[in-house]
Amino acid sequence: MSAHPGPSLLVDNIGELVTNEPYGESGPLGIRRRAAVLVEDGRIAWLGPAKYAPAADGRIDADGAAVLPGFVDSHSHLVFAGDRAPEFAARMAGQPYTGGGIRTTVGATRAASDDTLRANVSRLRIEALRQGTTTIEIKSGYGLSVADEARSLRIAGEFSTETTFLGAHVVPAEYANRPDDYVSLVCGPMLRAALPYARWIDVFCERGAFDADHARAILTVGQAAGLGVRLHANQLGPGPGVQLAVELGAASADHCTHLTDTDIDALAGSETVATLLPGAEFSTRSVYPDARRLLDAGAVVALATDCNPGSSYTSSVPFCIALAVREMGMTPAEAVWAATAGGARALRRDDVGVLRRGARADLTILDAPSYLHLAYRPGVPLIRQVLHNGVPQCQ
Amino acid sequence: MSAHPGPSLLVDNIGELVTNEPYGESGPLGIRRRAAVLVEDGRIAWLGPAKYAPAADGRIDADGAAVLPGFVDSHSHLVFAGDRAPEFAARMAGQPYTGGGIRTTVGATRAASDDTLRANVSRLRIEALRQGTTTIEIKSGYGLSVADEARSLRIAGEFSTETTFLGAHVVPAEYANRPDDYVSLVCGPMLRAALPYARWIDVFCERGAFDADHARAILTVGQAAGLGVRLHANQLGPGPGVQLAVELGAASADHCTHLTDTDIDALAGSETVATLLPGAEFSTRSVYPDARRLLDAGAVVALATDCNPGSSYTSSVPFCIALAVREMGMTPAEAVWAATAGGARALRRDDVGVLRRGARADLTILDAPSYLHLAYRPGVPLIRQVLHNGVPQCQ
Repeated sequence: MSAHPGPSLLVDNIGELVTNEPYGESGPLGIRRRAAVLVEDGRIAWLGPAKYAPAADGRIDADGAAVLPGFVDSHSHLVFAGDRAPEFAARMAGQPYTGGGIRTTVGATRAASDDTLRANVSRLRIEALRQGTTTIEIKSGYGLSVADEARSLRIAGEFSTETTFLGAHVVPAEYANRPDDYVSLVCGPMLRAALPYARWIDVFCERGAFDADHARAILTVGQAAGLGVRLHANQLGPGPGVQLAVELGAASADHCTHLTDTDIDALAGSETVATLLPGAEFSTRSVYPDARRLLDAGAVVALATDCNPGSSYTSSVPFCIALAVREMGMTPAEAVWAATAGGARALRRDDVGVLRRGARADLTILDAPSYLHLAYRPGVPLIRQVLHNGVPQCQ
Repeated sequence: MSAHPGPSLLVDNIGELVTNEPYGESGPLGIRRRAAVLVEDGRIAWLGPAKYAPAADGRIDADGAAVLPGFVDSHSHLVFAGDRAPEFAARMAGQPYTGGGIRTTVGATRAASDDTLRANVSRLRIEALRQGTTTIEIKSGYGLSVADEARSLRIAGEFSTETTFLGAHVVPAEYANRPDDYVSLVCGPMLRAALPYARWIDVFCERGAFDADHARAILTVGQAAGLGVRLHANQLGPGPGVQLAVELGAASADHCTHLTDTDIDALAGSETVATLLPGAEFSTRSVYPDARRLLDAGAVVALATDCNPGSSYTSSVPFCIALAVREMGMTPAEAVWAATAGGARALRRDDVGVLRRGARADLTILDAPSYLHLAYRPGVPLIRQVLHNGVPQCQ
């Protein structure tokens, strides 16, 4: 608490408050009924039964609605130019997704001005915020040159502290015949240029992108330089990604669409979160990951959007929650936890994705009486209001 | 044109205008580029190249975005009270959908005041409008008594001219052992009470609801009384519904999930539209109808939400478009046509679902450069502004 606290704000008359802090019989979502939350200096100063709520300078009446922690979208690629709507339409008409279209976006991104890139990130950041996302990880990966990766991360850093260096997204065309040279570039000059702006390092470890040896080399040098590790793993087919993520103590292995029993055991026995991105399977018409199997084995599961112009151009966490329930065997409660507390775990954050005293005042007020409606009412914009760092956002 | 026209409004700087009026090489969506639309007295007074646009009293700058006819949602059940979120959660945990839960909503609806029902329809109507729906059909069917069906239709009529008498939704509990008596009630006193408020008559023709003989009896008497015919057909399994719809010259056979070749041939050779409701398959985890097979056979396909608290609690036509492309083999163009012109055809309307001189000025301005984004960006609220009868709506 600062010596001169700012004005306080009471979110009152909450019908169902999802805290993700289990107590008593409240279940894993830590649900409280008829609750209120007091916000001060961007943090939660108090929460409890509405009838015991302290006085405050301002008040928002939730009118019996459900209130959740803001969504934590732990996987997005917002720094790019152009779109790939025709590629999407062709894919829906039968062309398979191979990741090859990434190079189309690399060309458009390199050719774009800083202002164009910034405007695009801003547009998508606002779009996500309006859908309840208060924390969003943003990757580079469409620059793929020293200068373009550095500026992608610099621009990402204007919108989020959760920035991820993904120089190893694909091998760019100019290095097509000498991938080893590109890996050296990523591990040397590109990493050095990225470091001031990045918190994480990531590699697309997949047939057609980077193999396990390349991925290990890149992640190890990034880790030694102080970056946290995350990994695109086992999206398009079985592979070494998940094992590598666990080996390196990665915060998250992302996609996890094609897993062996050994992969699942490795995740369950580790601190590495399995981040599932069903928007990608939706928009590439691929088989979905088996969240049920992961959960039953004891792995920690997060849900994120993968927002990018190629394989998953959605910024909607509620849409991903609905898909997780319909397609991946998650209960609505598991899906909501995965999109809030799970995302926070995947970013190794304990101040978001949860509502307790001292946590960030990132709250989503639904146009609905229960979190269940996020799955029960698919496609419907159900976010009535968002508080980010305690500040009500324009809807 | 009236003698004293109201103020005119020009929607200018449209990047992609979907008219559904093919001309030249524009394809079935009748797409025009760099276009403008002049609105006067709630109708379209002119449309064409932006550079030839006439002067107007007001102007909306579409800023290069895509503009479409407002969506025509030809199948919804908005008059009800309560919700069935726990039933939804139980179903996602493995319980099958049988339609039996309809009676839960009947109880809640009968117990609700007019004001409660009206407030619920209003909330959902506004929600749909914000998602681009400018025409919506609304069914009764949760009253199932003479008085409750009549008041359901009276309230529906406050929000839409497309009102449908669905007294034959299920047999209510008090008639459980004497369905013939209930059919007599529907065909007699209930129909007479409904007539002043209804334009259409509909029956849930399905195992567990009404068989072909009952459905034929009800629809025939409704048709003789001047109502148009539509039918819930072949949702939960194969059955006689589609054949009956074609036999009676129904405007639409709705669901069409389980079709034989004979059913498809019958639809293709008729004026009966096949209205597909993929929100229901999404929310009941059922197999989707095969739109591709219907389209290839030459049937006319419409897309609608089926918005109801049991099997499809979505009001989002964009969500249904995304599902149609992902799951039912429709191209984005076919899906957009089905949700606009197709819906209009299912309601036998030629003044909506299309943008041409004289049509209603129901326009949706997207936050996107192309209609493709409705499928390419699933779950994202992409509706920037809606004009309904020429009047800009609050977003």
